[in-house]
Amino acid sequence: MAYDRQLAKKSENVSDWYNKVIMEAELADYGPVKGTMIFRPYGYRIWELVQEAMDAKIKARGVDNAYFPLFIPESFLKKEAKHVEGFAPELAVVTIGGGEELEEKLVVRPTSETIMYDAYARWVQSWRDLPVMINQWNNVVRWEKRTYLFMRTTEFLWQEGHTAHATHDEAQDLQRWAIEMYAKIYRDLFALPGFLGHKSDSERFAGADDSLTYELLMPGGKALQGCTSHDLGQNFSKAFGINFQSKEGTEEKVWQTSWGFTTRSIGGLIMAHGDDKGLVLPPKLAPVQVVVVPVRMEEGVMKFADEVAAELKSAGLRVKVDDRDGESFGFKANKWELRGVPVRLEIGPREADAQQVTVARRTGGEKVTVPAEGLAKHLAAVLDEVQSGLLEAAEKQLRENTRHAKTWEEFKQIMAEHKGFIRAPWCERPECEAAIKEETTATTRCLELDAKPATGKCVHCDHNAKYEWLFAQSY
Amino acid sequence: MAYDRQLAKKSENVSDWYNKVIMEAELADYGPVKGTMIFRPYGYRIWELVQEAMDAKIKARGVDNAYFPLFIPESFLKKEAKHVEGFAPELAVVTIGGGEELEEKLVVRPTSETIMYDAYARWVQSWRDLPVMINQWNNVVRWEKRTYLFMRTTEFLWQEGHTAHATHDEAQDLQRWAIEMYAKIYRDLFALPGFLGHKSDSERFAGADDSLTYELLMPGGKALQGCTSHDLGQNFSKAFGINFQSKEGTEEKVWQTSWGFTTRSIGGLIMAHGDDKGLVLPPKLAPVQVVVVPVRMEEGVMKFADEVAAELKSAGLRVKVDDRDGESFGFKANKWELRGVPVRLEIGPREADAQQVTVARRTGGEKVTVPAEGLAKHLAAVLDEVQSGLLEAAEKQLRENTRHAKTWEEFKQIMAEHKGFIRAPWCERPECEAAIKEETTATTRCLELDAKPATGKCVHCDHNAKYEWLFAQSY
Repeated sequence: MAYDRQLAKKSENVSDWYNKVIMEAELADYGPVKGTMIFRPYGYRIWELVQEAMDAKIKARGVDNAYFPLFIPESFLKKEAKHVEGFAPELAVVTIGGGEELEEKLVVRPTSETIMYDAYARWVQSWRDLPVMINQWNNVVRWEKRTYLFMRTTEFLWQEGHTAHATHDEAQDLQRWAIEMYAKIYRDLFALPGFLGHKSDSERFAGADDSLTYELLMPGGKALQGCTSHDLGQNFSKAFGINFQSKEGTEEKVWQTSWGFTTRSIGGLIMAHGDDKGLVLPPKLAPVQVVVVPVRMEEGVMKFADEVAAELKSAGLRVKVDDRDGESFGFKANKWELRGVPVRLEIGPREADAQQVTVARRTGGEKVTVPAEGLAKHLAAVLDEVQSGLLEAAEKQLRENTRHAKTWEEFKQIMAEHKGFIRAPWCERPECEAAIKEETTATTRCLELDAKPATGKCVHCDHNAKYEWLFAQSY
Repeated sequence: MAYDRQLAKKSENVSDWYNKVIMEAELADYGPVKGTMIFRPYGYRIWELVQEAMDAKIKARGVDNAYFPLFIPESFLKKEAKHVEGFAPELAVVTIGGGEELEEKLVVRPTSETIMYDAYARWVQSWRDLPVMINQWNNVVRWEKRTYLFMRTTEFLWQEGHTAHATHDEAQDLQRWAIEMYAKIYRDLFALPGFLGHKSDSERFAGADDSLTYELLMPGGKALQGCTSHDLGQNFSKAFGINFQSKEGTEEKVWQTSWGFTTRSIGGLIMAHGDDKGLVLPPKLAPVQVVVVPVRMEEGVMKFADEVAAELKSAGLRVKVDDRDGESFGFKANKWELRGVPVRLEIGPREADAQQVTVARRTGGEKVTVPAEGLAKHLAAVLDEVQSGLLEAAEKQLRENTRHAKTWEEFKQIMAEHKGFIRAPWCERPECEAAIKEETTATTRCLELDAKPATGKCVHCDHNAKYEWLFAQSY
């Protein structure tokens, strides 16, 4: 029984804690092939809750779901020069099918631009066929040397949205919509605030003209790229020949976007909110929002526990009664703490007699005993409080770990003492970016949408800076 | 504009009609790799509607969703002898990862028994850990020589349920629950009746002790295996060492089931219900249940059309207004007929003035003009009628194409004149089964759950027959 083992302390060794809490909370397990992972039911359910919420938003924007093949002919990848350059080192390749050597090698999709846009070129003829707005929920494979559960795995799950438009403006609106939709999901469901902005030239998606990102703060002051949304310009429509006849009768190329949100987000969630006792799950993404733990497994108690749970379930809460045999009350209480369940209800003979329950919150509140009557309403309010409490705490963390550097000395000092995000004027030259990383481990995270114009020199070199950029050491 | 082309007639050439209707209704398209297909939004939405309904049933049974890796070490497949024998000829194999030749080849999952049960062996220790009941919605790859859109493709989508139990009885209950759940989905959503029964020894899943199947009738009297549910006995728990300590303290092996339902079902749907005009979709699986087609694209008409659509949407119907430019009313009416939309609403200036709509059903009813007031309720009833009308028609087809053969002469005559399902006493010997197939193309489809005991000889040979089996030529 995993949760009985010595859990590493997050406050002492984040990385060790992270791996252990994932295994012991049964969120995931290692797959047999290096770098792969199994999403166990408790971890997969978090992804389902993300999918439910996001899928509704995607559909409401008029984007349709579809499914394209897993296998991409190797030649497709090569059609967009920067794209293949970015992905070539990470590919898994099928060379045998049905017992025979294949004539053309097949790439297991690392992302679906090429196979989708080959079809878009067939489907789009006229301005009347536009926009094409398609999303996929699927699995992708990128061969990674250093892997980390949820954060970086050889195979991961995601959604990838791919749109084609008649005008650049319309494409840019969609690109912006996607990243703002992601940001809302991160804030409202994950309780994770972040910074929204443009990637630098060197950090941009392979094949994009512009990448928007949402950057999160992790423990130890590192940054995590939460998700991205790309303006692909006409790079792929040129490579794949996605042409259309405009209203005016001219032959044009479409403008495109792609945008993705992956199971890495769950890694960010675990990392950001957890504590020494284990996971802390925000109620909106908790597979179990309320766990009922009987103090003793006797008939009257269990009957009352089941009644309470049934009532809460019918009110729409995600509830579980822990009726497992052979574990003590204390053992169970610890287990559900480790699993990050927001609210634990303790029910013993006294509670059953008095038709009361004792409510223990995972975060932010003392134990209280309340009547079973009206419990669903009470707990819905508690869960809302817990959800907003987590967001507030994360916002405070983000504020306190975002600093301003006017000079290179200040920049280096912040990185040495605190890490976190640094706002600083920067010249936007890749050589300068590389030198900053070399000296401090910090990389550019983004140019915020509402970035302050800078008037003087770059924080690191003698060139002029147009804007203040955000820097941090990244995961 | 595809629907403008000459659609093959189903009544003249089913197979040609099938491919064309799929392409022209934009259900699917061919992928660039032989045998692969693209599920276009209109086709994928059908799968989503199946998933929604089935996922709720699966969860209600206490089965949790999870996700296991796509890549399986080649050595895993070899652990269960019959399993590898069944799947070896159909495998796609990854030999290169991250630019390097892999030490162990990786199989792209054709099904997930082996990779899942390797994990089950780690997770299960005690009777308290049982049952393990996990489902996955994912993609699988089986290299097929002869492919057919939806019906048989190199990559397909499905759900695969995998359970482990302490007793054989409990496993068999679950195996039976799964096939009955599938049968209900087929009847209630697909409007497809069928026969439920056991597979013969030679038709059984590779590694199972018993396979239950649901067999559907297709045009031309062929049978389609709709889905299967397997009793795996202890075959895999022996191969993978899934042991547990029983309540009594003894060491035991688990009893297992697996069961799958694939996108092939959509092929069956298209094939069974369509007609010379194109697709016919049962309302419960129609991505668009009601299409509003304006007779003329003028302001007053479009305004009324949008109002009507908004009202129907808020009542929970799936509605689309066809406001596409540059297509005539007649063209649009044909297009939505080809796409199988159950109800078309025609709205012109007269209807807008009178606040009425003309309701045209795709199947089973004349055009009628009804007031816009109360329309949602009226259409909900129409859709129910259409749904049950399709099921009744399919039941009649099934009844009329299921015959009884007492002698080998009768059997051969039925196959020569009608095909369809044949009930006949059979000896259950594989040699006899092979001979029947050789002479008539008919194979055993199943031994129905309530099969009639037979008293005399096998329909084909001199051996005794215990039961009457169902035969048909299969897809």
